[in-house]
Amino acid sequence: MANFGNMYGPKFTFLGIGECDLDDPKTYQGADVIIIGAPIDSGTSHRSGAKFGPQAIRGGDYLPHDGERPHMALRTDGLKDLKVLDAGDLLMPGGDLKKSLEMLAVATEKISRAGIIPVILGGDHSIASADVAGIAAHRGLGKISMIHFDAHADTGDSQFGALEGHGTPMRRLIESGAVRGDKFLQLGLRGYWPGDQTLKWMRDQGMRSYEMTEIHHRGLNVVLDESFATLTDQCDGVFLSVDIDVVDPGMAPGTGTPEPGGMTSRELLEAVRRICLELPVVGIDVVEVAPAFDSADITAILANRVVLEALSAIAKRKSGKPYSPTQNLLDR
Amino acid sequence: MANFGNMYGPKFTFLGIGECDLDDPKTYQGADVIIIGAPIDSGTSHRSGAKFGPQAIRGGDYLPHDGERPHMALRTDGLKDLKVLDAGDLLMPGGDLKKSLEMLAVATEKISRAGIIPVILGGDHSIASADVAGIAAHRGLGKISMIHFDAHADTGDSQFGALEGHGTPMRRLIESGAVRGDKFLQLGLRGYWPGDQTLKWMRDQGMRSYEMTEIHHRGLNVVLDESFATLTDQCDGVFLSVDIDVVDPGMAPGTGTPEPGGMTSRELLEAVRRICLELPVVGIDVVEVAPAFDSADITAILANRVVLEALSAIAKRKSGKPYSPTQNLLDR
Amino acid sequence: MANFGNMYGPKFTFLGIGECDLDDPKTYQGADVIIIGAPIDSGTSHRSGAKFGPQAIRGGDYLPHDGERPHMALRTDGLKDLKVLDAGDLLMPGGDLKKSLEMLAVATEKISRAGIIPVILGGDHSIASADVAGIAAHRGLGKISMIHFDAHADTGDSQFGALEGHGTPMRRLIESGAVRGDKFLQLGLRGYWPGDQTLKWMRDQGMRSYEMTEIHHRGLNVVLDESFATLTDQCDGVFLSVDIDVVDPGMAPGTGTPEPGGMTSRELLEAVRRICLELPVVGIDVVEVAPAFDSADITAILANRVVLEALSAIAKRKSGKPYSPTQNLLDR
Amino acid sequence: MANFGNMYGPKFTFLGIGECDLDDPKTYQGADVIIIGAPIDSGTSHRSGAKFGPQAIRGGDYLPHDGERPHMALRTDGLKDLKVLDAGDLLMPGGDLKKSLEMLAVATEKISRAGIIPVILGGDHSIASADVAGIAAHRGLGKISMIHFDAHADTGDSQFGALEGHGTPMRRLIESGAVRGDKFLQLGLRGYWPGDQTLKWMRDQGMRSYEMTEIHHRGLNVVLDESFATLTDQCDGVFLSVDIDVVDPGMAPGTGTPEPGGMTSRELLEAVRRICLELPVVGIDVVEVAPAFDSADITAILANRVVLEALSAIAKRKSGKPYSPTQNLLDR
Amino acid sequence: MANFGNMYGPKFTFLGIGECDLDDPKTYQGADVIIIGAPIDSGTSHRSGAKFGPQAIRGGDYLPHDGERPHMALRTDGLKDLKVLDAGDLLMPGGDLKKSLEMLAVATEKISRAGIIPVILGGDHSIASADVAGIAAHRGLGKISMIHFDAHADTGDSQFGALEGHGTPMRRLIESGAVRGDKFLQLGLRGYWPGDQTLKWMRDQGMRSYEMTEIHHRGLNVVLDESFATLTDQCDGVFLSVDIDVVDPGMAPGTGTPEPGGMTSRELLEAVRRICLELPVVGIDVVEVAPAFDSADITAILANRVVLEALSAIAKRKSGKPYSPTQNLLDR
Amino acid sequence: MANFGNMYGPKFTFLGIGECDLDDPKTYQGADVIIIGAPIDSGTSHRSGAKFGPQAIRGGDYLPHDGERPHMALRTDGLKDLKVLDAGDLLMPGGDLKKSLEMLAVATEKISRAGIIPVILGGDHSIASADVAGIAAHRGLGKISMIHFDAHADTGDSQFGALEGHGTPMRRLIESGAVRGDKFLQLGLRGYWPGDQTLKWMRDQGMRSYEMTEIHHRGLNVVLDESFATLTDQCDGVFLSVDIDVVDPGMAPGTGTPEPGGMTSRELLEAVRRICLELPVVGIDVVEVAPAFDSADITAILANRVVLEALSAIAKRKSGKPYSPTQNLLDR
Repeated sequence: MANFGNMYGPKFTFLGIGECDLDDPKTYQGADVIIIGAPIDSGTSHRSGAKFGPQAIRGGDYLPHDGERPHMALRTDGLKDLKVLDAGDLLMPGGDLKKSLEMLAVATEKISRAGIIPVILGGDHSIASADVAGIAAHRGLGKISMIHFDAHADTGDSQFGALEGHGTPMRRLIESGAVRGDKFLQLGLRGYWPGDQTLKWMRDQGMRSYEMTEIHHRGLNVVLDESFATLTDQCDGVFLSVDIDVVDPGMAPGTGTPEPGGMTSRELLEAVRRICLELPVVGIDVVEVAPAFDSADITAILANRVVLEALSAIAKRKSGKPYSPTQNLLDR
Repeated sequence: MANFGNMYGPKFTFLGIGECDLDDPKTYQGADVIIIGAPIDSGTSHRSGAKFGPQAIRGGDYLPHDGERPHMALRTDGLKDLKVLDAGDLLMPGGDLKKSLEMLAVATEKISRAGIIPVILGGDHSIASADVAGIAAHRGLGKISMIHFDAHADTGDSQFGALEGHGTPMRRLIESGAVRGDKFLQLGLRGYWPGDQTLKWMRDQGMRSYEMTEIHHRGLNVVLDESFATLTDQCDGVFLSVDIDVVDPGMAPGTGTPEPGGMTSRELLEAVRRICLELPVVGIDVVEVAPAFDSADITAILANRVVLEALSAIAKRKSGKPYSPTQNLLDR
Repeated sequence: MANFGNMYGPKFTFLGIGECDLDDPKTYQGADVIIIGAPIDSGTSHRSGAKFGPQAIRGGDYLPHDGERPHMALRTDGLKDLKVLDAGDLLMPGGDLKKSLEMLAVATEKISRAGIIPVILGGDHSIASADVAGIAAHRGLGKISMIHFDAHADTGDSQFGALEGHGTPMRRLIESGAVRGDKFLQLGLRGYWPGDQTLKWMRDQGMRSYEMTEIHHRGLNVVLDESFATLTDQCDGVFLSVDIDVVDPGMAPGTGTPEPGGMTSRELLEAVRRICLELPVVGIDVVEVAPAFDSADITAILANRVVLEALSAIAKRKSGKPYSPTQNLLDR
Repeated sequence: MANFGNMYGPKFTFLGIGECDLDDPKTYQGADVIIIGAPIDSGTSHRSGAKFGPQAIRGGDYLPHDGERPHMALRTDGLKDLKVLDAGDLLMPGGDLKKSLEMLAVATEKISRAGIIPVILGGDHSIASADVAGIAAHRGLGKISMIHFDAHADTGDSQFGALEGHGTPMRRLIESGAVRGDKFLQLGLRGYWPGDQTLKWMRDQGMRSYEMTEIHHRGLNVVLDESFATLTDQCDGVFLSVDIDVVDPGMAPGTGTPEPGGMTSRELLEAVRRICLELPVVGIDVVEVAPAFDSADITAILANRVVLEALSAIAKRKSGKPYSPTQNLLDR
Repeated sequence: MANFGNMYGPKFTFLGIGECDLDDPKTYQGADVIIIGAPIDSGTSHRSGAKFGPQAIRGGDYLPHDGERPHMALRTDGLKDLKVLDAGDLLMPGGDLKKSLEMLAVATEKISRAGIIPVILGGDHSIASADVAGIAAHRGLGKISMIHFDAHADTGDSQFGALEGHGTPMRRLIESGAVRGDKFLQLGLRGYWPGDQTLKWMRDQGMRSYEMTEIHHRGLNVVLDESFATLTDQCDGVFLSVDIDVVDPGMAPGTGTPEPGGMTSRELLEAVRRICLELPVVGIDVVEVAPAFDSADITAILANRVVLEALSAIAKRKSGKPYSPTQNLLDR
Repeated sequence: MANFGNMYGPKFTFLGIGECDLDDPKTYQGADVIIIGAPIDSGTSHRSGAKFGPQAIRGGDYLPHDGERPHMALRTDGLKDLKVLDAGDLLMPGGDLKKSLEMLAVATEKISRAGIIPVILGGDHSIASADVAGIAAHRGLGKISMIHFDAHADTGDSQFGALEGHGTPMRRLIESGAVRGDKFLQLGLRGYWPGDQTLKWMRDQGMRSYEMTEIHHRGLNVVLDESFATLTDQCDGVFLSVDIDVVDPGMAPGTGTPEPGGMTSRELLEAVRRICLELPVVGIDVVEVAPAFDSADITAILANRVVLEALSAIAKRKSGKPYSPTQNLLDR
């Protein structure tokens, strides 16, 4: 399996954690989580640049890159209390998106079969069609549910005449049976796409899609409560897909298709924490960070924090220790 | 009437809609809405740049510029369910602000008399003194009320010794009788201007001005509820004026006089939707977008969405179909 | 005492107010507040640039720099109803941080002894160890309490092997007795620093530290209510320290160690207002504004507004007039 | 043939010239030049973003977009004295680079067969392998020579394991016989790529490659003189390929693989003028403009000027009128 | 006469020199040079922003703002060996360009009549029509010659239908007789404006306009040599007008109408030095610095250096001491 | 000896070369060159940010970071034909500049004693006082000569009252005898600092300082020819110190004290090549790269190329093979 270090720019790991080689199982024996980069942006329908996302997310932090990150609120260290390794970037040339995606599916299947949670750093959202498919190939079609944060439904039938693209991955996953439509939850949708026909298709699949107005009026926690039962019923694992554009462009400008009116970063971090504390997460991707459009790296740093929030909460869940968000930090 | 295509840069229409020529009524027969650019920034008291606002707002969208925009939440298409045309920019040289504003008033009066809603893309806020005046010239002095989103009251007596300027348009409209002071609603005010004397003048006119602290403590919907009765009583139309600086500079940096502590973009979009769903809007302007200070075009895209939100809600209102913000997207 | 005008760039005062010379008491006789710049950033652990903070905060405003700022909501003018002077920047070379901090402590002690409130414009947060110490030297160890807005606790034992640095000032203040640990309140903490050992030390001192999740779930006003009694019990003055990174990087990108998930600027301004209205503030610093990373100056303008909000509220408190945040602006 | 208007963003033509439809020969009858966009960047080996090049080059001008551009020095109007039309962008999705390039080759062959000079706006340099091939398909293998401005030789054997990519087009053209190696001239090379093996291959083909040091020491005009005879001997047309990164990154930062030490923009413009005045140019591409990395649009404007310089000189050459660079402007 | 301090932003003088009040002759008695800001940009035909030019030029320097600047090569101090004062900005609102220009003409006439050289910081180039006219009103029509650095001829008949604008000032000056056409020298012209008719008018006036190609081929010093005799014959003073866009946009991006292919900053500085050393300069303006488009302030700093270069050379000329550019610095 | 990996941000080596540990001689046995970072900027007199220089220079390249760089013009590989290792950054906290510099001197002495050329990546120019001193401590006072590219002489007596600072290192080196004044060559000086007294001191030391005007008029190669004999007479090694601000800010904006009118990047690269081909270079530093002010990383990439140019030429010199700049690339 082609493992190319970091495909663009200097080679370093996520915040200084250890590295592993997907072609050499010894190097990742006993790991809980493997981080892997999917540096491709030829699936974008507008601004490119997300191929530099993995690099930016790995390095997006002002603290020493020492492989430690004690989480202040959860009082756990997602990088130390779990064994987390970085496999570098897959070699995913943009010119042949289909082939690059196939390689990614092979990689996540391999990681999943080893009993390890893959965390994929995108890249544009076309990668979700592959990274989730790889895990489903291991766990069984329809056996994992999906919780998907995004401004966009990504359920297009095709994009520029092709099946692959960042507007279509969720359609591909449901069509292939990898994820059942009625086990597919979306949060943060808004804006002017897709049109009626696609929305009808989504309803027909039994999807549950919350757009921002509903979240604004009903509250994010109410919406999450409503969904959690569904996600675990008949499924034994949950995949968390975070398109950074779910956050308002004011707080996350470094992305390719910014849609105003999104969540705050606080809301996203709180939601990710709850999901990873309460649900059996089996894979994560964080996508659509395009550093060329960022301002002072704030989007990259936010994406880095989404990964850390997830890892910290997974570690906390594993520890079995209690957590209350209203308890004072120094009393925990 | 001078119609100059787009005054600065390439010529294209708002998201690819059809164009019309204000000098040729045949070209806009049957239209519901005409979009027109007012590319002037010599009314600014600080940073200039808003003359590129019309260009930036027309093009601020990552979706195909194909003249269609199905609104996900409202399930209507503001560009298709209404007949919306773009008349290009008026030729408004900055060096003679007064004359340029007079031309704008002529244009909005003409559009209004044709039974069409003008949507004016600024430009700095000095244009409001003209675009509203033009509509009032058609509908009658005091017959339209005003709902005005802004960090600033814009009720100055004069600016640098002149009557025209982006700090004075609301004073001009009330003084001329175009809009009655007690039918003038302001939301989002904050900061350190104007001083006591002007505030006293505002109170004497019967204006209703909500600053951010009050909105923060009482809630935006409460404030809107309180106002809607007033706005339609004794008036047969409402003008909606949106200064993009009503939004916090963190989310809308691309503007000339940024005042911290503003609304979120989500709040502005929700408010615009409610207004256009519930009130008889007869004209709209969206002003003070200054692309040179923007970050990744997020302010321009937000202003584009304000226009689309308004058009979508007007189309929804026209359709007479019900809408509930808490109903799930896929159940609508 | 070295008084160097503005250390970097052109010399001008905070929004055009009068200037004074710390070496010449006549020049600040009768003053209520003295603003002073502490232009140093060699205490940073990551991005430098905060040494340009004083310059950026002084000038971060689009209104005329005329020494007047009527506060719209409070109906008072913090620059006119108080006597506020600008002493320029202290000469604080970065190469000898310790010596530079000593000079700052001398300056704030001098100002405090003159019965004047010092407002220090940073500079990185290392300056807090000195500016608070100077005031405590006048008022007595343990006689002032501290309310500290920050993403970070700043209670590190050492930084790069040194006692000085922007990660350690709060430790220094408690260790020296300048501020009692149980009179030390922190708001806005989040992220991945410090680790357990330091948190234990903080608990042992009796500190009260609210991280963002707790504030998010319990509400900012609830948290403030809980704290105010403590702050004034047994202390006769409160120092307010605002690290601008307490605000979400989306709204305040111009800082050195941005941690996602922070307060909105609205929340910070409301909190500062309440504190200065309700508590006997004896000193203020506003730190960590790094203009090189800012976007359209929005962070600098926000910091300017934090200073003005504080001064306006102090003036209001001094006036003894009532204020209700839910009363309409034009009824006040 | 797929003609998609402008693939990304608003639709408008190069500086307001007329448009044509490649599928409808009537629309471009009698044209001298057709401009066409090739908006693809999945051939890049590093920063993407060049897919926005066509848009940026078309609109990169502060003058009115009125389809006129009188050249001050040449006293001719490249847009009026020639018939120049804009065919919009080809639909070139990034995910299937090979297929997209094939479409481009079909387009340039079609234009060339109609006796019209195609001017292709890239896009990354992978497009040269197709746009030149299309012309060669019409004019005959080996019948056109190549003059290529670039920091890089672009003669790689493969890129990320694929034949297509912006590092390989010149190899493809020579291998296929489209252009003879000994009729292939390169100017402006520098830096650290390719290695010995590729350089040997280049020498073996009889290529003539001038790196910047040689140009710096011998002079650009000397080098051009030396080459012109070769270019027209045994060939009946010359293709001009301009990678904007031939210019120093200081003057053209908006590109994906910036290599310091390049030409000044003045030198490039003078060279382009000479070439189009003195040689029978049959096609042109201008590539690697990546707006996301630009500063105040200076790179896009430079690329726009390269196109205009070429068109103006072609018009001048066609007019048969004399031109001397040392004669005063007002004496011409 | 209205003197408004600095019209936009904080008040400070050019590099810390003393200030004067144009309404109070005592304050500028004995001065050699008065610097005055003309902060207006409503004469622009494209990007605005030059109204912040005076502020940016005054402060564009990393050295202490202490009113001293020893010129390394000339071994003179333009700010100390001459008496140079800063009169602040004129109050020039953009909305009435004509009136604002009239005020400027009054100011420069006043300064000139006092025997002082006015140095005007623009603002857009429309100001030249006024600042030169003011000096000519004092010295007599046709008695001063003009040396004008610019990418553009600025000899348009009208702009957007008005006589005022940054495309027309040189026409106005010649038409009014303020400057004789045959005493009007232009350097650095290039690009695609104006057209034949205007060029014919320029030739008819006897103007001498050097475009970049001629300068490139003949050499800047040759061109300057050719011109100097003309400039002083029959005239007793020379006005130097520097539009910063004469420099290549790569080196001076912060301007409104950037035209590629310009001079280097080194060339401009050398030319300004020679002019002020060898000719009797009676006025200077430096225009079209638009900070919003600048990169790291390099354009503002360059403009600051143009002013200093001129003042230093004027001081050197006044001293009568010899200067040789090839003599070593430490031997001077 | 403290070796801290990379002090700020992710850890990686210069373009992927091998790493070594200064505390473990085995790790650098047989090395020709050791690269080491000196990430400090508290010696700056204006903008900070250079502490991120080492990181930016190491990673400033679009080619794969694979530890190879075949130089196209010289036909040698500076990273392969020499043994080059990266020792990471020294731990140099900004708050105690003096102590940090002492550590650097120890490091370069150690490297030099091991017979290895140190290449120091700054950091601000204060580091030169230490890195050169360290080498001189090994080779003997006055035994190495200095060739120094800079806009500034850096010969100040003190800075903000301290001996250390980026304005004083050259004074320190001469005063201490580390480098003889008459063996100290400077190129590229310009601007308005220092004043007469310091220039007199420089002359008294026998320094040879070429400012830009002299270079402009006499030619860079002439000036270099004149100097080379001096540099090697009585000295057995040459230290090359490159302050990136020697290049015009237009081409190298990412620096702290930009002075217009500098060299082009082409000129700097050619000069560095000649120096390293013709002189016995024993140490190099490249300083004052401040990424926060850069545009598209062009300054960092230029600094990276300065290092590579030097290494390539050292390798070429070592190989003993001939080189002619006018010979064609493919004939070499």
